[in-house]
Amino acid sequence: MILVRRFENADWLAVWPLLQATFDAGDTYAYSPQSTEAEIHEAWVELPSATYVAVDLQGHLLGTYFIKPNQPGLGAHVCNCGYVVSPAAQGRGVASAMCTHSQAEAVSLGFLAMQFNLVVSTNERAVRLWQHLGFAVVGTLAQAFRHQRLGLVDALVMFKTLVDVD
Amino acid sequence: MILVRRFENADWLAVWPLLQATFDAGDTYAYSPQSTEAEIHEAWVELPSATYVAVDLQGHLLGTYFIKPNQPGLGAHVCNCGYVVSPAAQGRGVASAMCTHSQAEAVSLGFLAMQFNLVVSTNERAVRLWQHLGFAVVGTLAQAFRHQRLGLVDALVMFKTLVDVD
Repeated sequence: MILVRRFENADWLAVWPLLQATFDAGDTYAYSPQSTEAEIHEAWVELPSATYVAVDLQGHLLGTYFIKPNQPGLGAHVCNCGYVVSPAAQGRGVASAMCTHSQAEAVSLGFLAMQFNLVVSTNERAVRLWQHLGFAVVGTLAQAFRHQRLGLVDALVMFKTLVDVD
Repeated sequence: MILVRRFENADWLAVWPLLQATFDAGDTYAYSPQSTEAEIHEAWVELPSATYVAVDLQGHLLGTYFIKPNQPGLGAHVCNCGYVVSPAAQGRGVASAMCTHSQAEAVSLGFLAMQFNLVVSTNERAVRLWQHLGFAVVGTLAQAFRHQRLGLVDALVMFKTLVDVD
């Protein structure tokens, strides 16, 4: 059972170590492995429009995601999300549950589309999952991600229209 | 004659009205037409790695551009630039001079590639110019720009590798 709800301040105690370990691996997100807790709190909690956690019935953290406008003003109707799943909860559909939740939240927040700017091409499981959930690869950025094990690898721009406007 | 040099604080007196008029038109940049002077100063001068102006021999402002990392940490080797040309100087090669200058500056600042995230598809002159200067359209973002006259229009992701890393 996966519950997705709004982030509360008390969640940070569990969210920060998960984010720290994720960014430290340097294989999925651009945030520097040397990022401070304050920098990541700003990026994950303060700047976004909203932040969420996925928890099990006992309240254990399974994952977290944020949603924010991808551009200012005249591009602010397209949102951007970032998702992180706890290593202990891999393979249980947490990313899928969070992405599905985020699409509904995005629409209720007034966004018309969702864009991922830098999906690491070697993160094949994520690429397949986003495609399964309706996102298209709309662009490839040559060597745009400095993978901590593999060196410079391509990154993908992925996009999904959520609300059709004629 | 077009000279491109680093922005100095005294330039803001001429740069701000140019940026304000450009963003107010709402047909090329996502910055909200309602942006304040402080917001635009932060975006154009404070946040970027460097800001430049193009001037004529009399010192009159012809255009301005900034250069900054397009992503944090592991994506920070790809830069992003924004260019604005004075309406009075259109057709004189100012955008071309600034973009050529920016590519050399980018390399000297250590960037390996340059990415434009939101080139408005209806800004055909700009699209053609960037292509002429070596940028490829690597992605199309459906209805990602809220054009102030035309409504929702597509935006393009454009990309150029500046330094080949094998």
